Amino acid sequence: MKNPIRLAKELLLRGEEDGGEGSGDHCQYSGAYAEWLAAQWGLEIVDPEYFFTQRKWDEHKRGLAEEKSREEQGLKVDEVSEWEKETYIPLGTCGAVVIDSFGTICVATSTGGLTNKVPGRIGDTPTMGAGFWARYQLAGWRSFPEGPECVGVFDQHAEKAAAFGLPTAYDIEALLREGAPDFLDVVTSVEGHAFAVRMAIAKGLPVICQKPLAESYEESRALVREAEAAGVWFAVHENWRYQAAIRAVGDLLAQGVVGTPFRARIQFSCSFPVFENQPFLATLDRFILTDIGSHILDAARYLFGEVDSLLCRMSRVNPTIEGEDVATVMMGMERCPSVVCEMSYASRLMDENFPETYITVEGSEGSIELRKDGWIHLTTASGTASHQVVPPSYKWADPAYAAVHASIVACNAALYTALQNGEPAETSAADNLKTVALVWASYESAETGRLIDMKEYQSR
Amino acid sequence: MKNPIRLAKELLLRGEEDGGEGSGDHCQYSGAYAEWLAAQWGLEIVDPEYFFTQRKWDEHKRGLAEEKSREEQGLKVDEVSEWEKETYIPLGTCGAVVIDSFGTICVATSTGGLTNKVPGRIGDTPTMGAGFWARYQLAGWRSFPEGPECVGVFDQHAEKAAAFGLPTAYDIEALLREGAPDFLDVVTSVEGHAFAVRMAIAKGLPVICQKPLAESYEESRALVREAEAAGVWFAVHENWRYQAAIRAVGDLLAQGVVGTPFRARIQFSCSFPVFENQPFLATLDRFILTDIGSHILDAARYLFGEVDSLLCRMSRVNPTIEGEDVATVMMGMERCPSVVCEMSYASRLMDENFPETYITVEGSEGSIELRKDGWIHLTTASGTASHQVVPPSYKWADPAYAAVHASIVACNAALYTALQNGEPAETSAADNLKTVALVWASYESAETGRLIDMKEYQSR
Repeated sequence: MKNPIRLAKELLLRGEEDGGEGSGDHCQYSGAYAEWLAAQWGLEIVDPEYFFTQRKWDEHKRGLAEEKSREEQGLKVDEVSEWEKETYIPLGTCGAVVIDSFGTICVATSTGGLTNKVPGRIGDTPTMGAGFWARYQLAGWRSFPEGPECVGVFDQHAEKAAAFGLPTAYDIEALLREGAPDFLDVVTSVEGHAFAVRMAIAKGLPVICQKPLAESYEESRALVREAEAAGVWFAVHENWRYQAAIRAVGDLLAQGVVGTPFRARIQFSCSFPVFENQPFLATLDRFILTDIGSHILDAARYLFGEVDSLLCRMSRVNPTIEGEDVATVMMGMERCPSVVCEMSYASRLMDENFPETYITVEGSEGSIELRKDGWIHLTTASGTASHQVVPPSYKWADPAYAAVHASIVACNAALYTALQNGEPAETSAADNLKTVALVWASYESAETGRLIDMKEYQSR
Repeated sequence: MKNPIRLAKELLLRGEEDGGEGSGDHCQYSGAYAEWLAAQWGLEIVDPEYFFTQRKWDEHKRGLAEEKSREEQGLKVDEVSEWEKETYIPLGTCGAVVIDSFGTICVATSTGGLTNKVPGRIGDTPTMGAGFWARYQLAGWRSFPEGPECVGVFDQHAEKAAAFGLPTAYDIEALLREGAPDFLDVVTSVEGHAFAVRMAIAKGLPVICQKPLAESYEESRALVREAEAAGVWFAVHENWRYQAAIRAVGDLLAQGVVGTPFRARIQFSCSFPVFENQPFLATLDRFILTDIGSHILDAARYLFGEVDSLLCRMSRVNPTIEGEDVATVMMGMERCPSVVCEMSYASRLMDENFPETYITVEGSEGSIELRKDGWIHLTTASGTASHQVVPPSYKWADPAYAAVHASIVACNAALYTALQNGEPAETSAADNLKTVALVWASYESAETGRLIDMKEYQSR
């Protein structure tokens, strides 16, 4: 068919009507049946010849030649050639966003796909909220034996909710009424957080929200204030600081084995091809600070307390992305006068190991160095003692993300314990707001070239 | 004798007179002959019993017991016990400084020595300008075969000059007149720099001056301006950047093997007991930035050009010293947007190796990591390649300082070549003034908590 977005519109409008085949609520369509529906609804069908362009044909042929040359160059399957970087990533996708007078947002994108892929390939374009994290979050709750029972799952795409094998509903209000849960766990993409959190607040229901809390510092703060005013228990699922190795560093600091810390460095720098796995990240105006930066700055707060002032410098190294992929933040902190956080998705380093965080703490009596594979090296006057922190192993966890996925369980356990004891969580929303402030203050610092006084920033 | 400073005064006043035994110009005296002179001159002689105090006797006995316990604890000879740290370092020495109406400064110090040392030990108190560096500097000139011939040595203590086996003089003016040198190499302690440099300027004689150029930024700038006004070639002997491994990093950057640098870290952090070897360093109000900081910030300029702004945080970790022993400086630089220099004499780190500098440069195409024993690890898309940079070996060099001492020869060679070609040296005084500015701007930043704009700072 000629115009796929017209079909998408018809699916939304007619899908639930008689003869619409119940197609209005699915999130993906492909192949002959979709074309048949288009024909039924009178949309224009054209011969495949219509889509031929010489430019794309030439690109196809160049791609085949390039494929051959990759083999000759000995490039591995997961390596990206110079040609691919130049030809693929900047192509983008044709799209449109409209907002009506009621504030309803409607988005449409259309793509011819990527050259030289398997026929029938469906890309990421039509996927709204991949549910990537929900899978691990639910497994995280289930790995915690004294933990809560999940009474239901809601997703705007009902079949995705159904995949969890739990009660679902088209209407989240109904689900909350029927399930009568003790708390709501919000695992949607960030755009859905405010809606879900406000619904919980309105019902006086304790609520856990995925990071990042909201799309801006102001909105995050508004949610925190609304929950406080309503007396609703509100926590953020910030799990990075619950990684076993980071916790072990925190424990050593609390035991005072290196005396009083005077300098620290927290590093998350690697060449992991994050934009290949999640191409939409390349389209974000603000990237690394809102992404991994939230976690690293939060881990810094866990280890060293609050920030008095910060200076941030950032760079965009990968020329095919919109936002920054490198940031360095220098902070004066409550329990350490100089903390530098280094973040980068553009660094090829000898010992890099995505998604591990490396930490160095220098103190009056020695140092702690967290390095590759969870090895912690503790150096004091009596020499260096090393031990490896191995995270708990879970069958559902992706081995490549073992340390991060295991931290979901530890985070859930901490949240649930706090909730049961009627105490604010370690990562309460009010606490997490301080991390959110660091993220946005870092942007302001990098963009203005100024040092940011955090007291002043937070009192605005 | 009862009052050693009275004897010191008499030695200065009567030493050159008849019967003074020519004793006025020596820098150290000890034992029976000095006491005999004191008696001759009518100074009060007391029985050794006079110096007995119960407190020092108890300390002596505690020291002996402690010595035994060191053996039981298995402490090595070069390790400092907790008892020593508490008992020795904070003791200090009794001293006085006077300045007369002509600006003549006179200093006297007196010490009972350290408890439980070999009888007859002479400490560092009476040594003015140990000539530590001159020995290596002269050897450095001699290791450079096409280099200059040294026509004479001047030292305020003539016998120290004589030790070099070269023409000397009581009067530096006479030495310069008779030796007719092509340039003057100033290797005195910092207080003597301005005098010597101004003498060279007055004679239109090219001059090389040891780092640090002068005792303040203002005085350094005054010297640079005076030399410029007089058209005198003026260079600073800043040799750190001439270390073979640091040069190798600079060469790799110049070749562009890691593309465009976006972040760098230069580290000089260790637990080397610098205050045990040079106790006067513990008495300085400003320590690590003027000391190793000058070198590290200069190495940063060598690698990445000039600084737009800097933020510095510093700490005093060792409680027995006056100045700061830790500093961290974050800079935006001409060829790298984020450079962090870490300096510390208070850090026990797994891979520390005094006096080595470690460097990490992250660039768009890979990274350079200079680590222990001169190993350079170059990581690019094709993996990590490592090679070791071994500095040239010289017989006169202290093996523990091999990399630093070898850099004296490289620095001298570069200075001499520039002088012969009639060009400004890479480390001209005007260039070095920019490093001096970084040192003092770092203090201002740390003391005010402000970010320093270097253009503004240098235009004051």
